[in-house]
Amino acid sequence: MDLLKNKILEVGVVISKDVIKLDSILNHQVDPQLTLEMGKVFATRFREAAVDKVMTIESSGIPIAFATALELGVPLVFARRKKTLTTDDDAWSERVPSFTKGIVTDIMVSKAYLREGERVLIIDDFIANGDAARGLIRVIRRAGAEIAAVGIAVEKTFQSGGRSIREEGIHVESLVKIASMENGNIIFE
Amino acid sequence: MDLLKNKILEVGVVISKDVIKLDSILNHQVDPQLTLEMGKVFATRFREAAVDKVMTIESSGIPIAFATALELGVPLVFARRKKTLTTDDDAWSERVPSFTKGIVTDIMVSKAYLREGERVLIIDDFIANGDAARGLIRVIRRAGAEIAAVGIAVEKTFQSGGRSIREEGIHVESLVKIASMENGNIIFE
Repeated sequence: MDLLKNKILEVGVVISKDVIKLDSILNHQVDPQLTLEMGKVFATRFREAAVDKVMTIESSGIPIAFATALELGVPLVFARRKKTLTTDDDAWSERVPSFTKGIVTDIMVSKAYLREGERVLIIDDFIANGDAARGLIRVIRRAGAEIAAVGIAVEKTFQSGGRSIREEGIHVESLVKIASMENGNIIFE
Repeated sequence: MDLLKNKILEVGVVISKDVIKLDSILNHQVDPQLTLEMGKVFATRFREAAVDKVMTIESSGIPIAFATALELGVPLVFARRKKTLTTDDDAWSERVPSFTKGIVTDIMVSKAYLREGERVLIIDDFIANGDAARGLIRVIRRAGAEIAAVGIAVEKTFQSGGRSIREEGIHVESLVKIASMENGNIIFE
């Protein structure tokens, strides 16, 4: 997706050879029109995947996942990172380490919004080691639902997440693949 | 907004006289089409407010705030609830108690995405005591930016948040106002 590549070159801040900050378009400030275009591309790529539901983890993935769900005409479910007063006890939960945050969090999805047999499209902004996506995959399988596919805005292919999930036979599509960020230079695949 | 009122009557679960759960359309599962309609209504109501930016707090407000920003053609900024490895040190932060979560969290907005003189529209899903909105208002004022208005999906008018913010002279619009939830019956204003 050239529009996203160009934006990354324009606004991406390479923090280290492993971490790029896209706060001004994805993670803190959001460019709604770009995000809608990303949703349209995902919807086109997954139109044949018979998706019942889009799923992401709060918070950064929500705008892209929302745009994708809107274009596909299906509900969005976002996994919550902790229990709140108004959350069901009746929930699937999994422990997920976060690459960027350097911490472990529990994610939960209410059993009411993830049913046996549903085909779920996972959407997220980044994939590094794939821990977040794998947490969602475990939740979806425990519910007896199916993984329709995984859609990632920015895949860092020098980290193992996308590859290891593809090796399980899951369809993973990334809008942009970054092969390297050595010396602050962003090299796309 | 009758579409939202009808949905609330259909799917809302009154937990107590103060708390209503709208997890199936707003806070956990999201109805993208309904959310887009909410964004369109907000955009119509705030078209004349010269909005430069929409702001919310992660996570539940993000879809509605995104839809509003999309319709108004301006960026969305969501205040983060804690620092992450990839977040600026150069940020405005405020302490905010959460009515539903029963905890206090720190919110932060990078100074890069909130500039002096910008007119900011605050959007959130609920207003109860108004602590979240007031946290954003403090952040916006500290940045030297202006509060264009506040848009709330569901205002519980039997709690003081909306009223106290209006009394400060800020324009607050709610899509739906709930006057009472005594005995599990939702009474709209």
